[in-house]
Amino acid sequence: MRASESGAGDLTVETVAELGEFGLVERITDALATTPAVIVGAGDDAAEVKAVGSVVVSTDLLVDQGHFRRDWSTAHEVGRKAAASNLSDLNAMGARPTALTLCLALPGDLPVSWVDEMVRGFVEECRSVGAAVVGGDVAASDVLTIAVTALGHADQTICRDGAESGQQVAVAGALGLSGAGFAALSRGFRSPRAAVQAHRVPEPPYGAGMAAARAGATAMIDVSDGLMGDLGHIARASEVQIDLNTGLIPLEPAVVTVAEALGRHPLSFVLSGGEDYAIVATFPAHAELPEGFTRIGTVVAVPAGDRPRVMVDGEPWDETPGYEHFR
Amino acid sequence: MRASESGAGDLTVETVAELGEFGLVERITDALATTPAVIVGAGDDAAEVKAVGSVVVSTDLLVDQGHFRRDWSTAHEVGRKAAASNLSDLNAMGARPTALTLCLALPGDLPVSWVDEMVRGFVEECRSVGAAVVGGDVAASDVLTIAVTALGHADQTICRDGAESGQQVAVAGALGLSGAGFAALSRGFRSPRAAVQAHRVPEPPYGAGMAAARAGATAMIDVSDGLMGDLGHIARASEVQIDLNTGLIPLEPAVVTVAEALGRHPLSFVLSGGEDYAIVATFPAHAELPEGFTRIGTVVAVPAGDRPRVMVDGEPWDETPGYEHFR
Repeated sequence: MRASESGAGDLTVETVAELGEFGLVERITDALATTPAVIVGAGDDAAEVKAVGSVVVSTDLLVDQGHFRRDWSTAHEVGRKAAASNLSDLNAMGARPTALTLCLALPGDLPVSWVDEMVRGFVEECRSVGAAVVGGDVAASDVLTIAVTALGHADQTICRDGAESGQQVAVAGALGLSGAGFAALSRGFRSPRAAVQAHRVPEPPYGAGMAAARAGATAMIDVSDGLMGDLGHIARASEVQIDLNTGLIPLEPAVVTVAEALGRHPLSFVLSGGEDYAIVATFPAHAELPEGFTRIGTVVAVPAGDRPRVMVDGEPWDETPGYEHFR
Repeated sequence: MRASESGAGDLTVETVAELGEFGLVERITDALATTPAVIVGAGDDAAEVKAVGSVVVSTDLLVDQGHFRRDWSTAHEVGRKAAASNLSDLNAMGARPTALTLCLALPGDLPVSWVDEMVRGFVEECRSVGAAVVGGDVAASDVLTIAVTALGHADQTICRDGAESGQQVAVAGALGLSGAGFAALSRGFRSPRAAVQAHRVPEPPYGAGMAAARAGATAMIDVSDGLMGDLGHIARASEVQIDLNTGLIPLEPAVVTVAEALGRHPLSFVLSGGEDYAIVATFPAHAELPEGFTRIGTVVAVPAGDRPRVMVDGEPWDETPGYEHFR
């Protein structure tokens, strides 16, 4: 390892190409995390993790410039976000995460220190929910790409197709903060901190999905593409309409600040902003909502001649329903 | 969908950018495969798959130009290979595959028909071993990248660290064919067909790993980076030396053909060629080898002053030990 030309003692200019694949794999493997659920950990052809009856599995891809920007986020933040976006999917099924894998496609000139920090952030986020990191893969690529798979356990998974007319719609976690942070960063701002930091490192309401499952949630999803878009998935899968009551939706102060600065309505961030990884679920009409959930609307039957969709205060909403890649 | 400008009726020039993320996800989801092991399939936040006691998990990354070339291989072949390389890792643990996930990072100008064919090849390879495809993710990227995770079940996983002095070393599946095919393709040849086709679509000896586990295999790995390199992993993990007897190693006729044409020794392909996904395992000295396995060497103690490594006919081998990314 060579010292940085800048003279900073803890930085190195060693690149992944200089270290090579096998050195990189060894270095990453040493940094991973195990738990009592791990039977065979990283370093073999495959890992083995305890499972009771079934395993819940989710996978996500993060691409440099599309899902994160190295000039906006530290490597540690990128690692935490890569884990969080997958852990959120398990949260949305009512599952407890047990183990994750991490694949990295890396440009050869990427500093090894960036990989170290990214892996450290990834492992820390997984550890915070008691999940192990049991392996992965590395390869060379001109585009930094991160692929994550998360495994977990659920006594009862909650899918998207169980919402019924008359039920409550409720949310846990922040809405619009990440989208407001993205809007601020896009215009060169670094504040308000609550919004910018939420975009860099989301804080999903871990455990809310399991609590919702125990409370009888009938359908559930995480808000990764925007509340309107993600509730739209529930509406279509359940063949219902969802009517949001904007008077009930909590507005984060930082969202209001960004909206005022940019001349936008705060609800545009709340309804269309993605990557907050809030949990939104439907519950029976008279169910007591679990701690952390706020009622924001009602499931209604699809009126004759209409289609499953999400209404806002009884009216159609005409803004773009969420972020879509390739668009 | 628009007709191809070439006028070929079954081709389209529609690109993934024109179809968009949600259209692409829907299209891929419709093409996936389910089995009775799948409790919740593709289309929700996560999938749920039956598991008994534990789940074996492996993940792999394939990058355009590094792991495959679109001018050498059809989309269908790339899909089959992407599945095969992961299914092989489960094979090497003695596991039966149950379900796979598929992440695709795609350039916007890629024809949707390429994705269709790739997914079809992927699903066919999974179906051939009874495994479902339960979900995935898509994202935009300038570099076509495929990330696969495979789940499986093993009554008893076979790791790399169980080889002991005096035991037999045996292999199932072809050795050197893919490497010889790569060498031929690199020089612009399209033959011999057996070698070229093995490089495009490997045919791992599916089931050999489970058979080896039942026969008492003590250590096992798949030959993805080359026999010397992969046996080196067993030697180091088990703290032994492995002595290969080249007189026992089967030589594929196509490997001999390529070696003669290029003025190389056929053993260089057999010992250093990767991506055949043969299974190599160690067995107790007097164990009866399962069908399909050929004895190729012996596990020996590390001589005083030496280190764990792989010898060839009692001598050190000085060629490069296998393919390494970033090199």
